[in-house]
Amino acid sequence: MSSPPSTTRRVSIPDLEKFCLAILRQAGVREDDARATADVLVTTDAWGIFTHGTKNLRGYIRRIQAGGLRTQAKPRIVAEGPAWAIIDGDSGLGMVASTFAMQTALAKARAAGIGYAGLRNTCHFGAAGYYAALAARENFIGIAVANDIPSVTVPGASGAVLGSNPFAFSVPTGDDRPILLDMATSTVAGGKVFTAAALNQKIPADWIVDRSGNPATDPALFPRAAALTPMAGHKGYGLALLIETLSAIATGAAMTHQVLSWSFDDPSRSTNHGAAFIAIDVGAMMPLKEFHSRVTHVVREIRAAPRARGAQRIFIPGEMEWERRAQALVHGIELPADVIDSLRALSELGFDPPPFAA
Amino acid sequence: MSSPPSTTRRVSIPDLEKFCLAILRQAGVREDDARATADVLVTTDAWGIFTHGTKNLRGYIRRIQAGGLRTQAKPRIVAEGPAWAIIDGDSGLGMVASTFAMQTALAKARAAGIGYAGLRNTCHFGAAGYYAALAARENFIGIAVANDIPSVTVPGASGAVLGSNPFAFSVPTGDDRPILLDMATSTVAGGKVFTAAALNQKIPADWIVDRSGNPATDPALFPRAAALTPMAGHKGYGLALLIETLSAIATGAAMTHQVLSWSFDDPSRSTNHGAAFIAIDVGAMMPLKEFHSRVTHVVREIRAAPRARGAQRIFIPGEMEWERRAQALVHGIELPADVIDSLRALSELGFDPPPFAA
Repeated sequence: MSSPPSTTRRVSIPDLEKFCLAILRQAGVREDDARATADVLVTTDAWGIFTHGTKNLRGYIRRIQAGGLRTQAKPRIVAEGPAWAIIDGDSGLGMVASTFAMQTALAKARAAGIGYAGLRNTCHFGAAGYYAALAARENFIGIAVANDIPSVTVPGASGAVLGSNPFAFSVPTGDDRPILLDMATSTVAGGKVFTAAALNQKIPADWIVDRSGNPATDPALFPRAAALTPMAGHKGYGLALLIETLSAIATGAAMTHQVLSWSFDDPSRSTNHGAAFIAIDVGAMMPLKEFHSRVTHVVREIRAAPRARGAQRIFIPGEMEWERRAQALVHGIELPADVIDSLRALSELGFDPPPFAA
Repeated sequence: MSSPPSTTRRVSIPDLEKFCLAILRQAGVREDDARATADVLVTTDAWGIFTHGTKNLRGYIRRIQAGGLRTQAKPRIVAEGPAWAIIDGDSGLGMVASTFAMQTALAKARAAGIGYAGLRNTCHFGAAGYYAALAARENFIGIAVANDIPSVTVPGASGAVLGSNPFAFSVPTGDDRPILLDMATSTVAGGKVFTAAALNQKIPADWIVDRSGNPATDPALFPRAAALTPMAGHKGYGLALLIETLSAIATGAAMTHQVLSWSFDDPSRSTNHGAAFIAIDVGAMMPLKEFHSRVTHVVREIRAAPRARGAQRIFIPGEMEWERRAQALVHGIELPADVIDSLRALSELGFDPPPFAA
């Protein structure tokens, strides 16, 4: 195909949503589920987390077309108690099941003060932070975690042992910009290594190790001949193992090497990812106004701390993302070239190219 | 005083317990509370975590004598719901209130599946991992966190902003060695910097930053003229902020700079530390046997992973600590010289020196 050369493109949030919705509908996804999925992906792009946004739509659509992702899936609670639920994602889109699961955790927390929802038989859920922020919007502390195919080594090992198992949390602050952190438990997310490989750039020596367990700077080795390093060594390893426990061991999802890659493996098969969501009703424990005021006290104190030489500003976790989103609401999102390429490549799956990048 | 020069000393677990109990009783601590406290400190030493064990007894006793730690304190639930409780530690020993709080979280989790106990008006609780392991012993996933005086900087800042806010978790495995991780959210715990200073050793350039926010290798700068670095930069910063939220912002405890140091500040005042404990009843969600078998599958898989060149073994989080404890049960604990010095210095507070280090 003779596409124009890759460049960034600016697109408004409504136009990007409209495009995603059209693709998802055309692929057979139910209206509500298409809306939920588009909101996750476009919000993630608006935050500037382009590795986890609409760039991945093509991979999800490929699995839908091959049957590994079921468009008619209905996530359902298969076991529950006063403050917990185990949910089966019915091999549907991770965004749909994960939104349902966080809403279930919120309902449990509304009744009991804290709620845990474990999710199995789901797929890649995009950015964990989206679900944590869902909780914060309702004035709950939200935590979201998930497992994934092993891509990260552990101290003493040479190959991939655990997934880059993301951890996200959000804390309500009384305004529309909750504290928000979304992190991989690897030193860097795999997406950053892929991006460096695509740009033919070397990477820092602490991002990956080769098959002997030695540091490597060639991103092209990953994932076939290299593994990511765990964040802060044994600490990231331990956190990833806790996340594997909460999202997969305790939920009945596929564990470690049982998980299929949502992007590389046979798209006709269910990936059986696991995820877990915790919501805490801080307003049950002290007046919400007092909680907001206490959070705001700490936030202001951090912002006003003495700055390191050369530092312009101290950021609160999530602040950069909320500011990017505020900009995007006014000026649109500047989608990077690799995202544009991926959206254009939907044409290979039988869809019209995005009108904003025709 | 003419003490013999510092050397390590080997002591049996019962002898070390007996010594701690005698000191605590003599200081006026109630029998049950003395036992609870001695168990935390001696277990921590048996794990080989000497920065958080009996070495700190002297500091706690000093606060008891000055009135900042109340020996007659009774931790009590001040607010609760189906799956949560807020506990006031009544300015007593952190070990007593934290054991009570984890037991409260366990009781809530037994009823509801997951339980959260927030603790305020407490003091330094020693090793967070002890309380996480308490939960695992009952076949619950346990999580324990706490705040502390600011000693850690954040990206863009030059001085201390948040505490080294520890995070611990434990996962039951069906035997007496649960998975167990206890970590500071700083790159290294402050105790390691103090130890290097005592030994006149330089430290790696990524452990602390000086007043300008630049890396420093002289441990003597800390804490007056340097701050610890956060683990993995913005990730450790974010985790520490979540821990501050769960343990202090949501519980009513002192936050950040409001906390007093249990070792440096006026011992006649309450430190008002905060802590939080979460327990999850995995046996409510799937048959316990199945959970154990799934955990064990992952543990075996990790142990059997291809090893890095030169690596002898891949450790499961907590495995080193459980092995050290097993050795200690048979051969006693080899207490480092700085621990022996600290125990001997109890004589300055009016106590007999330890018989095993007379």
